[in-house]
Amino acid sequence: MRFLKLTIAYDGTDYCGWQIQDNDIAIQQRLEEGWQRVTGESIRITASGRTDGGVHAEGQVCSLATETEIPTANLLRALNTQTPFDITVLSVEEVAAGFHAIRDAIGKTYRYQIQYGRILDPLGLRYWWFVPWMLDVEAMQVAADWLVGTHDFLSFQSKGADRSTTIRTITDLSLKTSVKQTQIDIPRLTITISADGFLYKMVRNIVGSLVRVGQGRESTEWLKWVLAQKNRDFAGQAAPANGLFLQAVEYAPLWLTPQLD
Amino acid sequence: MRFLKLTIAYDGTDYCGWQIQDNDIAIQQRLEEGWQRVTGESIRITASGRTDGGVHAEGQVCSLATETEIPTANLLRALNTQTPFDITVLSVEEVAAGFHAIRDAIGKTYRYQIQYGRILDPLGLRYWWFVPWMLDVEAMQVAADWLVGTHDFLSFQSKGADRSTTIRTITDLSLKTSVKQTQIDIPRLTITISADGFLYKMVRNIVGSLVRVGQGRESTEWLKWVLAQKNRDFAGQAAPANGLFLQAVEYAPLWLTPQLD
Repeated sequence: MRFLKLTIAYDGTDYCGWQIQDNDIAIQQRLEEGWQRVTGESIRITASGRTDGGVHAEGQVCSLATETEIPTANLLRALNTQTPFDITVLSVEEVAAGFHAIRDAIGKTYRYQIQYGRILDPLGLRYWWFVPWMLDVEAMQVAADWLVGTHDFLSFQSKGADRSTTIRTITDLSLKTSVKQTQIDIPRLTITISADGFLYKMVRNIVGSLVRVGQGRESTEWLKWVLAQKNRDFAGQAAPANGLFLQAVEYAPLWLTPQLD
Repeated sequence: MRFLKLTIAYDGTDYCGWQIQDNDIAIQQRLEEGWQRVTGESIRITASGRTDGGVHAEGQVCSLATETEIPTANLLRALNTQTPFDITVLSVEEVAAGFHAIRDAIGKTYRYQIQYGRILDPLGLRYWWFVPWMLDVEAMQVAADWLVGTHDFLSFQSKGADRSTTIRTITDLSLKTSVKQTQIDIPRLTITISADGFLYKMVRNIVGSLVRVGQGRESTEWLKWVLAQKNRDFAGQAAPANGLFLQAVEYAPLWLTPQLD
């Protein structure tokens, strides 16, 4: 039995999300089908987390246990001929026995992309949430700083996938503005958020709340207050899926050193 | 009668192109419908050139003559509420009487975007042509330099929209590489091409030919030879529409100074 780690990227637009569901197409399904065509094996592939419908990934990590003897380089090439164009396997690596993409994850980084202002860039529509207001990004960063550290993030967990504990540690939450220059300037905001783990829709709930601050609808202190309520009803509306990217998942280096049988 | 210049951006993916056609949806149609809902006028809107199906624009320019007295700032706002999300009006300007987007254009700039190498970035799929080879970009630039200047570009004109003369002047044809850094590096190439005018599918035919040089299938001198043949049969296959952007259209400043009636 070999244990493998797959790093994959996908455009989530046309999928119901990572996890296999009835009556809809999931990324997991397409990847497992591809695996079967390449190896003949019908196996379960586990991802570090189930991204929702429409959410993208640049560094989703999957784990699997296999009997195949095909070398990793060949698996990489073959899988990419057997998956749709909007799903790419970036790497296939041997890992230590027992490696599990969810259980062994020690950190994750998401990126959320916003375009804002009066004019929507139609070429940004697929990957940038359009917020038709000017945003006070400085105020948003002040508010964001309240969330960094170890807190109970219950206020930012959507219903539908409860976790045993809602305490998480955000190690980085940083906002960066840029400008897309075409015939007119399109202001953009990229929010990067790293934590030891995330609750259901936590990033999108945080981004939706930060945008309320950026619009001037709420003060920077408001976010601190929302966090303290430990109640989802007080946070802002979740930001849409299209701006969200799972950027990277972190594991202890130990796992990446496969032991010889 | 007022003459107006509209600068527009669009994602061409879901359209048959700029020009109205039977049995398909054109950008022109959506814009003219929007104009009618805003002003009540059923008029013809002329673009600087008909982009093909799937081709994008960041700075397409349109002209129209109107009886409406709505101020330009209000037209801008109102039009953007009456056009689909994948078409945006970037600006509405008063211009001199008689301004015509095709006839008065003195220069145009297109950008063509390529991602290349072994691994396809699924998040680049919509706007970057994936060439699954390594490319010798230096050789491509040497070949490209043969095309700069005034030449008969008949070899790079696709059939279907013959022009009275096939002589054009390319003022700039420059290649620039970059790397999209995610879990793995994705090499990218951006080709910018400016000319006083373009023949039908000229940019895509040039890009397709340059890629053959980049792949090592043809020498840099080959492009000079193709140009001299004045025969489309010798150039490379046209590059696909999804990587092409109409970036800007140039007019004499004179037009942009409206005369008062």
